[in-house]
Amino acid sequence: MTTKELVQNVLATQYNNIPDEVLTHAKKSIQNWMGVAIGAAYHPSVDMVLGLKKDLQSGEQVSVLGRPEKVDLLLGSLTNGMTSHIFDFDDTHLDTIHHPSGPVAPVVFALGEHYDIDPKELLRAFVLGCEVELRISNAVYPSHYDLGWHITSSVGVFGAAVAAGVLLDFDEEQMLHALGLAGTQSSGLREMFGTMTKPFHPGKAAQNGLLAALLAKKGFTSSKQVLEAKRGFASVLAPEHNLERVNENWGAQWELLKNAFKPYACGIVLHPSIDACIKLREHAQPEEVKEIQVTVNPYVLELTGKVKPKTGLEGKFSIYHTATVSFLEGDAGEDQYQDDVVLRPDVVEFRSKIKPTVDPNMEEDKVKAKIVLNNGKEFSVTIDHATGSIENPMTQEHLDSKFEKLTNSIIGNENTSKVIQNMKNFETLPSIKKVIELCTGNNVLV
Amino acid sequence: MTTKELVQNVLATQYNNIPDEVLTHAKKSIQNWMGVAIGAAYHPSVDMVLGLKKDLQSGEQVSVLGRPEKVDLLLGSLTNGMTSHIFDFDDTHLDTIHHPSGPVAPVVFALGEHYDIDPKELLRAFVLGCEVELRISNAVYPSHYDLGWHITSSVGVFGAAVAAGVLLDFDEEQMLHALGLAGTQSSGLREMFGTMTKPFHPGKAAQNGLLAALLAKKGFTSSKQVLEAKRGFASVLAPEHNLERVNENWGAQWELLKNAFKPYACGIVLHPSIDACIKLREHAQPEEVKEIQVTVNPYVLELTGKVKPKTGLEGKFSIYHTATVSFLEGDAGEDQYQDDVVLRPDVVEFRSKIKPTVDPNMEEDKVKAKIVLNNGKEFSVTIDHATGSIENPMTQEHLDSKFEKLTNSIIGNENTSKVIQNMKNFETLPSIKKVIELCTGNNVLV
Repeated sequence: MTTKELVQNVLATQYNNIPDEVLTHAKKSIQNWMGVAIGAAYHPSVDMVLGLKKDLQSGEQVSVLGRPEKVDLLLGSLTNGMTSHIFDFDDTHLDTIHHPSGPVAPVVFALGEHYDIDPKELLRAFVLGCEVELRISNAVYPSHYDLGWHITSSVGVFGAAVAAGVLLDFDEEQMLHALGLAGTQSSGLREMFGTMTKPFHPGKAAQNGLLAALLAKKGFTSSKQVLEAKRGFASVLAPEHNLERVNENWGAQWELLKNAFKPYACGIVLHPSIDACIKLREHAQPEEVKEIQVTVNPYVLELTGKVKPKTGLEGKFSIYHTATVSFLEGDAGEDQYQDDVVLRPDVVEFRSKIKPTVDPNMEEDKVKAKIVLNNGKEFSVTIDHATGSIENPMTQEHLDSKFEKLTNSIIGNENTSKVIQNMKNFETLPSIKKVIELCTGNNVLV
Repeated sequence: MTTKELVQNVLATQYNNIPDEVLTHAKKSIQNWMGVAIGAAYHPSVDMVLGLKKDLQSGEQVSVLGRPEKVDLLLGSLTNGMTSHIFDFDDTHLDTIHHPSGPVAPVVFALGEHYDIDPKELLRAFVLGCEVELRISNAVYPSHYDLGWHITSSVGVFGAAVAAGVLLDFDEEQMLHALGLAGTQSSGLREMFGTMTKPFHPGKAAQNGLLAALLAKKGFTSSKQVLEAKRGFASVLAPEHNLERVNENWGAQWELLKNAFKPYACGIVLHPSIDACIKLREHAQPEEVKEIQVTVNPYVLELTGKVKPKTGLEGKFSIYHTATVSFLEGDAGEDQYQDDVVLRPDVVEFRSKIKPTVDPNMEEDKVKAKIVLNNGKEFSVTIDHATGSIENPMTQEHLDSKFEKLTNSIIGNENTSKVIQNMKNFETLPSIKKVIELCTGNNVLV
């Protein structure tokens, strides 16, 4: 009954049933998703995927964020889902390491643009798609993830199908079949991490979920108990699971509110150290610094202990590089993880001043840091909860600034400002088309 | 090293390295696949999938067997893979219950038609695709299937990718990435059995495998150890596995030779009884029969014990109906499993004369049957190995007759004859295009 109850919950939830707080968080999530998607729009892997358009002589229906090309609904969902995960800079439901927007938002944008659907309905579809995927993730985490499934993809496909089903105005029967078709396409192995195939995953989940809905719309039949059946999703893909979590407190508790945004373009374990170094920079100029001591959770050195990174990507796995740029430039965005920055003489020299120490009792989102100057002076700072954690979320201003850094060079400053303004009152816009047009980079690059 | 060794084996196997016996079996497999695909071309689910063409404004590149429509490479692979599994009448690698042609042949046909590739290379790609998927299935069966994976789909995707990679002339690096991309799309739950989504599975495997290859062709990167990695395919999707089986005796032992063809359009457990009833019909007219006693393996009544079927599909799960039509009509093809046949008065009446008895010592492909006439006479027959088993394979004539029954009404008798003739010397044809044209039904239905 889990699947059926879930579908009934989804269909009973109208726009007006969604609290303002959730709608606001949805708009933030969508804006953050758009920013990371636009920012990565010219990664080489995107050209490869868009090359499929020619291979397949496919239709021109919807936009690719950050690019001038138009592609068909399915290729659009694949591409926009992929780009948003390329920088590893997208949103995170910290309880399950699930990045909810990646599989859901591309479907909302594709159908929204193609059918010019009321933005209120788009917000509803986004919220419901995210709720469904995050609740299923709650039910199968951690065994599903530990086994080796990339949960954003393998569970995200359900969210994509539900978002599409909401926008295609499904009845209970159609939504059940769509979930069956989605679940049987669930896939995505963690073995792919570190290759282009990792960001391919949320894109494929978006595409598969939309395909499921397009077929269910036509009357295609599937299992109506995909989550709980003996050989259904949970039994086959999660050695341990608790399906009660899928529907519990529906409408009272909103998983989307636990969706966090990354202020920095690297692993979350580094974020407290970045916050600390940004604070310390007010005490000294670089040439005055003797060393910066950071006392961190053991995970930090385990995951990001690279002493001499050679590429931007390696820089993301180096606390030495990350603390350095945070102090020198006051940020750790994509700009600070470019290959030339990692190799810059002043950056290389300053790296040797970073002295990390492990403390097993230090919480993961906490850090203690001390700066020692050449003149003997010392200043200390403690970060209790890193920026972007649930306890210390990014402000709207910080989110806007992150968006600007990602999109200014792709769609231009003017379009960037307009998009930010539009997103603040997204639900009252007459159409999503205008916003998408601002994001396609037509004005800047073509 | 399993994946790398497999790729090296594939790339080292040229057309001339494949024994004639294997090539002949490949041609039989392809012909059988074409027949079951054409026969099901007008199933309602096919119209639904082809409706995607309009939804997506997709290109016209390749043919759908049995239909006049042209669709793009990916939709063509999906459709032709699906149709071939709709009747549950396709080929079977009995060791693993894997239907090898379904995921592989659609890719061979799509690329073969689109790029007009030499039929010899098409045969090579088909053989290699099937070898790869069947060897991987050997390595993960039965734990993978028992867990709930539809092995034809979840493993078939590797075969599809390899067939595509062979035809796209991949080097080792590209083929490794294609296998990684294929494995991360592996999916298909047995929970879907009994719905339209079951035949959707081999189609999706074909489509996903082709997509993997199209991306790898462009330089898209993935894991190069998808089969054996800690969080790779075998570890995640098969609780027990023996990856040594993937490459053992490569070139000396051919799994494709173990591919069996079904003479009858129902579960394999019924095939011995059908053979027996067809033999018994020479002894009497229907009105002379008092009863037919069949002594069967216990699985037969467990799986096909439906006493009063009401639909054609239910007839496939009824030994009473199946034995009846076998005696009355001398066959158990799709024609004998139509709804109106199941409800026909003479069929309903005769069903009560079928008396099955279970014998736990009876082998699965064996049956003993006795006909008792109203005049007291009795005749007995024993089937040691049902037609279509490895020990008693279908003859070429029987395969041709199966093909005719499936295709005559769709593409016409004349085209049917021509296709059968063409398949006998497929490797010497100047192009596959002519054969495909004969199969598209243009001459008959448009």
